[in-house]
Amino acid sequence: MPPATDPMTLLRAVNDSAAFNRWCGFEVQRALPGEVELAMPWRAELGQYSGFLHAGVVGALIDTACGFAAASQVGSRLLASHFAINCLRPAIGERFVAKARVLRVGRQQVFTRCELYAHEQGREKLVATGETLLCVMGTAATA
Amino acid sequence: MPPATDPMTLLRAVNDSAAFNRWCGFEVQRALPGEVELAMPWRAELGQYSGFLHAGVVGALIDTACGFAAASQVGSRLLASHFAINCLRPAIGERFVAKARVLRVGRQQVFTRCELYAHEQGREKLVATGETLLCVMGTAATA
Amino acid sequence: MPPATDPMTLLRAVNDSAAFNRWCGFEVQRALPGEVELAMPWRAELGQYSGFLHAGVVGALIDTACGFAAASQVGSRLLASHFAINCLRPAIGERFVAKARVLRVGRQQVFTRCELYAHEQGREKLVATGETLLCVMGTAATA
Amino acid sequence: MPPATDPMTLLRAVNDSAAFNRWCGFEVQRALPGEVELAMPWRAELGQYSGFLHAGVVGALIDTACGFAAASQVGSRLLASHFAINCLRPAIGERFVAKARVLRVGRQQVFTRCELYAHEQGREKLVATGETLLCVMGTAATA
Repeated sequence: MPPATDPMTLLRAVNDSAAFNRWCGFEVQRALPGEVELAMPWRAELGQYSGFLHAGVVGALIDTACGFAAASQVGSRLLASHFAINCLRPAIGERFVAKARVLRVGRQQVFTRCELYAHEQGREKLVATGETLLCVMGTAATA
Repeated sequence: MPPATDPMTLLRAVNDSAAFNRWCGFEVQRALPGEVELAMPWRAELGQYSGFLHAGVVGALIDTACGFAAASQVGSRLLASHFAINCLRPAIGERFVAKARVLRVGRQQVFTRCELYAHEQGREKLVATGETLLCVMGTAATA
Repeated sequence: MPPATDPMTLLRAVNDSAAFNRWCGFEVQRALPGEVELAMPWRAELGQYSGFLHAGVVGALIDTACGFAAASQVGSRLLASHFAINCLRPAIGERFVAKARVLRVGRQQVFTRCELYAHEQGREKLVATGETLLCVMGTAATA
Repeated sequence: MPPATDPMTLLRAVNDSAAFNRWCGFEVQRALPGEVELAMPWRAELGQYSGFLHAGVVGALIDTACGFAAASQVGSRLLASHFAINCLRPAIGERFVAKARVLRVGRQQVFTRCELYAHEQGREKLVATGETLLCVMGTAATA
């Protein structure tokens, strides 16, 4: 029974081992091979000067969800090379959910895509989108 | 002598008013119109699972430095629309410095660019680059 | 019967008025408000040194399809501010179809997303993805 | 004296072998290891509906110049994985020059950056910026 083949077990372990993820309050709420949902409750410390979710945290959620979607399919020997975020609306909500999925697994690279939703008073709203390109590390390689 | 025209005073006030910036430990270390340096000392809570600086924090530093560079030139009525990050090397260091500058101020948009350097044992190394596109808000507009 | 409200009529007119689009052989094959398909048959002049579709043409197809999707919803007073392309696989095919849609229309900006498919021997394959951020021009404004 | 080590000879050969580059009129006007200038005279066929240089051609110039800068340093076994373009101003000019340089060569990836200038009546103006991430192909690998 290799635990590494269960994406939820793998990703919760990775998530727990990352100090920043714990501080942010990231929770792996769904994990299938190539498809991950990462949630985070709102807290005031996550805000920028207007009280919206900080764009940096928007990016961190999306980048992390994308990395987890990739890891759920090819394992955790991955490094993010590039990520890009579109901020469609001010990120205001009680809870945020990043839904990421793998677009393509190549020999050396994994392409992923993500939507970030804000939940507020029972409504779900798309607030940001993003994409990540990850590099599959060789035996001793880095990007 | 209006304080708003002194970029350093404006940006330190904005930086202090953002809870996430305070938690991260962002420090405005240089501010000229259109040019800003934002520094952050390393702490373990800022790490990902391998102990490098979390890509989300890399993005937050770059996005914030870019926003500050734009604000130093056109004021703080700005919203980030898009940002993109290239992770050139694992972000390892005792201190990180994001150096951002404005590329172009348009009527509705500001384009900025940033380099992120890691300082370690007296050496400075380029670890990431990024760019941001900000939207200049009208009287009541959002993106 | 205002012709401007029919996306297909509007976009075919815009497409025909752009010299580069005509040279490339772009064809508006579907147009609904906020959703457009732009097709292009393969020709050798569109290739790079290995004989695949040139990444520049991949970008042109995606950028154009995104601009058309935005125009189909808000009219043609738009300028592309930013676009980004992910090349998932070598772009090889007899015909290429870019399927773009609007993600969000703001007061000053339109966010769009696109998938580029290659058709070969009756099969459709996703070869690239992209996104565009367009600026809605004011009375006399440019980006 | 292996000719492959002279970037100008290598890149002119690659440029001549790409049908789209020839049609566009790309000219390698400068080539050092990791630094390339690619020029293109304006022609009406390169325009979009307003008569500016088509954003797709802006992207093609930048993507090609970036690819050439990478090839000048690591050879031509490269595929573009990602590129992103910022359109700072309407691209109007008699001649366009894309100046690209390598930011970082990794084991599997090359990061590059580019500025596109328009020349008009003896003046040079920055009209776009861009960046490219290229994948170094292994023995038989693709992205």
